Amino acid sequence: MSTSQDPIRKVELFTVFVPFKEYIRDMLQGGSGKVAMGLKVDDHWLGGDFLVCRMTTENGVVGIGDSYSWLVESAASPAMMAEVIRDHLARFVLGRSAFDMELINDKMDNNVARNEMAKGVLDLALYDVAARTINRPVHDLCGGKQIDRIPMSMVLPLTNVDTIRHLVGLGLEAGIKSFRCKLGDGAHKDVEIIKAVRELIGPEAGLRVDYNQAYNANEALAAIEAIAPYGIDYAEQPVKGDDFVGMAWVQSRTNVPLMAHESGFGLRDIVTLAEMGAVRTFGINPERPGGMTGALKAIDYAAAKGLDVVLHNQPSGIGSAVILHMHAARARNICHATELQGHIMMEDDLIKDEIVYEDGFAHLPEGPGWGVELDEDAIDKYQIQDTIVIEA
Amino acid sequence: MSTSQDPIRKVELFTVFVPFKEYIRDMLQGGSGKVAMGLKVDDHWLGGDFLVCRMTTENGVVGIGDSYSWLVESAASPAMMAEVIRDHLARFVLGRSAFDMELINDKMDNNVARNEMAKGVLDLALYDVAARTINRPVHDLCGGKQIDRIPMSMVLPLTNVDTIRHLVGLGLEAGIKSFRCKLGDGAHKDVEIIKAVRELIGPEAGLRVDYNQAYNANEALAAIEAIAPYGIDYAEQPVKGDDFVGMAWVQSRTNVPLMAHESGFGLRDIVTLAEMGAVRTFGINPERPGGMTGALKAIDYAAAKGLDVVLHNQPSGIGSAVILHMHAARARNICHATELQGHIMMEDDLIKDEIVYEDGFAHLPEGPGWGVELDEDAIDKYQIQDTIVIEA
Repeated sequence: MSTSQDPIRKVELFTVFVPFKEYIRDMLQGGSGKVAMGLKVDDHWLGGDFLVCRMTTENGVVGIGDSYSWLVESAASPAMMAEVIRDHLARFVLGRSAFDMELINDKMDNNVARNEMAKGVLDLALYDVAARTINRPVHDLCGGKQIDRIPMSMVLPLTNVDTIRHLVGLGLEAGIKSFRCKLGDGAHKDVEIIKAVRELIGPEAGLRVDYNQAYNANEALAAIEAIAPYGIDYAEQPVKGDDFVGMAWVQSRTNVPLMAHESGFGLRDIVTLAEMGAVRTFGINPERPGGMTGALKAIDYAAAKGLDVVLHNQPSGIGSAVILHMHAARARNICHATELQGHIMMEDDLIKDEIVYEDGFAHLPEGPGWGVELDEDAIDKYQIQDTIVIEA
Repeated sequence: MSTSQDPIRKVELFTVFVPFKEYIRDMLQGGSGKVAMGLKVDDHWLGGDFLVCRMTTENGVVGIGDSYSWLVESAASPAMMAEVIRDHLARFVLGRSAFDMELINDKMDNNVARNEMAKGVLDLALYDVAARTINRPVHDLCGGKQIDRIPMSMVLPLTNVDTIRHLVGLGLEAGIKSFRCKLGDGAHKDVEIIKAVRELIGPEAGLRVDYNQAYNANEALAAIEAIAPYGIDYAEQPVKGDDFVGMAWVQSRTNVPLMAHESGFGLRDIVTLAEMGAVRTFGINPERPGGMTGALKAIDYAAAKGLDVVLHNQPSGIGSAVILHMHAARARNICHATELQGHIMMEDDLIKDEIVYEDGFAHLPEGPGWGVELDEDAIDKYQIQDTIVIEA
């Protein structure tokens, strides 16, 4: 029997919460606002919420995909994603070949509006199943790898300058050459932070900033222009995520490239922002624009249009592997170091073997599929709802 | 004690499915595609899904709000809305005064991205509670009523021309002076339908069309220009809901005003479309831009910008009352007849007394709040999940 005729028979969904490491919790709670960033939320942030999907074919090929979720930004909790997959999306996967990603995505989009992340979880698992079916790494289904060491950028919380200096020192020792500063406590404080960080990292290291929607458009322009002299690779989400018009106005007035994060769900959101002139950099969380299928289209669109791309997320080890495959397969079109904060922040990465981070680079996982294996003991430990099993 | 200090103590959520009347099911199944419209869905459409919310204050004031949902367009099922309200949104309502709508909406938006409809259900119930607290109709909290008879428009399914002619005849007999034709089976068929309908209704009756995302931008422009000579008030959603760029291109080439439906969730979506020049008419489903709070802002924004507004939905009797209050309170800024299909399509409207429809007009319900009372027997009959009760 042709491998392409091996239909998917089972979808299992695990709703998981992994606490942050204690020093990370302390750092987030000791910073600005509730979460050491510009977001105006009511609660502290205690860990990572994930929906993990395991997909099994008739012949027993098993693939995994997952999505990190934070309702403040992502609009869907793991429980909500599980529900829409169980009741409305899984039927478009069951009985079909994992290689039929375009058809499956088309069915999902025609029958269920939005819900890009839930669709993305399924799409990522399809890629793992397809790649394992042919015993190849996922990047071989996406044009092959161009590199196998992926440069990493380090995120710095919005907190006092002494703590930020200390963290930058640790990053430099670990070989990091690109830093992201959380900003948003006013232009004066922003400049104080950026000045301190630029002094420490020298003129050639990468420096990007993230406002987490802290400002209105007028404030944002003034704040960005105030730090522009220090050399800024791009400025992430200075205004509210849904304020495309404000974003476009700010970008029209500054030479610092803007990047949208909270703004961008589906591929069409980021295309709309790009066509409005509201961004010069695409920020991609793989599950957000609907998995590998949507993310690769977004990267290729950006490249065709002459815009930058950066990959970023706070993923589990599964999601980190996804991003590393994506970066490796599109390295020539991704000029910025990738941000993977999950393994730094959370007490477990949900995979058996750890991904290697060394000298400021992550190693592309080897082996079939994503090259990582789900740690079932960790799932048992961190699962917060019963496993959902959908079969056909 | 001041009424404004009477905090909300209980939120109850009812997940309800009301079947379509049998002749409506037959008509939808006998039309084009699966649902007698341009949408490319896999299933027939059998009835209306609703999330109904009942809110009770410490002093026993009770208010209701609801949302109609169709996952194909609305992205959230009643079960998903119930979940995000129970686990993440209700806490911003409980313990607060129903009059504090701005604060509550701000909290909801800062802590939970998107989920506009779930927020809208709560906002609508807040309006009912607030109005009943002062024993006034809701429109008195929104600037007062300008009219108490609201003109209605009638929707015609995408089906054979003979059936459409028959339905138009029934509409004209009932005093209807505005019709919406579902189109999308190609420009030739579109013209055949529009020509037949315009002949029957005469040159002065209103005629609007709805493509339900059937075309790409190039097809859409050709199709709209083909029917333009017959006098078209506006053309609804000719391209994919997320294709803002395509919509803007079509609007840049045609004098027929475009209206977005599947495109528009939050207020900022429709503002983005307007600022891109992609629409000349705002279509408002009240729960979509976050209830009365968001919908009134959208209507006032459109009026300030010189754009048309139309109110439309397939609601329960609760949702119909909401729209009638909204239309009555903004009548001078709403030049198009309102579309309320729920009472025509579904076998029950979930309220005790029926809303009066007469001579092509709906009567604004009288009495405090929305002026309608929840029919608990109907809820018992059509409820498909256990009631969710959240208390503080």
